[in-house]
Amino acid sequence: MEYTSVILENAVNELAKLPGIGQRTALRFALHLLKQNEDNTLRLAKSLVELVTEIKHCKVCNNLSDSEICSICANNDRQKDVICVVENIREVMAIESTNQYRGLYHVLGGVISPIEGVGVGDIAIEQLIKRVEQENVKEIILALPTTMEGDTTSFYINKLLENHKIKITAIARGIAIGDKIEYADEQTLARSILNRRDFSDIYK
Amino acid sequence: MEYTSVILENAVNELAKLPGIGQRTALRFALHLLKQNEDNTLRLAKSLVELVTEIKHCKVCNNLSDSEICSICANNDRQKDVICVVENIREVMAIESTNQYRGLYHVLGGVISPIEGVGVGDIAIEQLIKRVEQENVKEIILALPTTMEGDTTSFYINKLLENHKIKITAIARGIAIGDKIEYADEQTLARSILNRRDFSDIYK
Repeated sequence: MEYTSVILENAVNELAKLPGIGQRTALRFALHLLKQNEDNTLRLAKSLVELVTEIKHCKVCNNLSDSEICSICANNDRQKDVICVVENIREVMAIESTNQYRGLYHVLGGVISPIEGVGVGDIAIEQLIKRVEQENVKEIILALPTTMEGDTTSFYINKLLENHKIKITAIARGIAIGDKIEYADEQTLARSILNRRDFSDIYK
Repeated sequence: MEYTSVILENAVNELAKLPGIGQRTALRFALHLLKQNEDNTLRLAKSLVELVTEIKHCKVCNNLSDSEICSICANNDRQKDVICVVENIREVMAIESTNQYRGLYHVLGGVISPIEGVGVGDIAIEQLIKRVEQENVKEIILALPTTMEGDTTSFYINKLLENHKIKITAIARGIAIGDKIEYADEQTLARSILNRRDFSDIYK
């Protein structure tokens, strides 16, 4: 595309680096920002600067936080001996919104992926093992994605922790509530049959 | 969604104001920026600040420009007596990329739209009339969208200029090159039959 303004071209090129955003959408963003009140764009720019310069990783659970210790780890009402291991803050937010979990988290910041060059040392596994060794942890809940990378990471963590006297569980996989059984993929259906539970347990 | 960081929440809320971007995509953007080198995000923020504080509108054609007069208006190789009237810079860029037009532009910055509260005074129509009166303009090419708003704007400009001794044309509408005739909508097909041209004119 031919731009008549280098300033516009720069902004479009920078916006087009956002994931899934091409040149056309980036141009739409830039023209939208130009139509708006200048303050809105300055606020957006400021929030992005603050995002990368001021945000911290919680020293305990590695979750994104405004302070050294995140609000979940600092909350004394939470159950401190259960740790749910997740890939990133998105899963923390999803699980928090269910209001069903009162334990702590451990945010790995990724999963082991040789293809993308993510090794064991690149994610917060060592930090997790230290937590288990130093704190009084009774249960580790693995809530990693069911991809090859997620499963590899789950198996690796399970292996590292098998000699520690803690319970290691994984979140239940099965057919989603409301989904039709006939449309479920075979793996999910197979797992949901193998992992069936006493009816009285579910509806107690 | 529950955020464990106000800084993150702010950035997500600001990003979610971009057109077509919801909270989830905005969160994806924010986490992507956090994974990247800090400099990339600072560059993005800087480009946005520059966009809204430094960009100008060309004093002649109203196009976005880095200087008082845009590079197209300042170019002495362009044909100065033909002005193509467009809605915004996107159309300028599209037409420029064809390399078929050597005249100037006039960027209205919108089309008349009572529903969206865009009146005659909100777009650069008066500036266009002044150009026609003060400069030696021979032809005005209307290249506005074929929506009700675009057509209204075209008719309005045509009305204002009908007593001036200039040629007023509109870009050709018809079936796109490569499109199948059977799939064309009736209006387009009707227009392309009514506006048929001598075969020898097209392939001369």
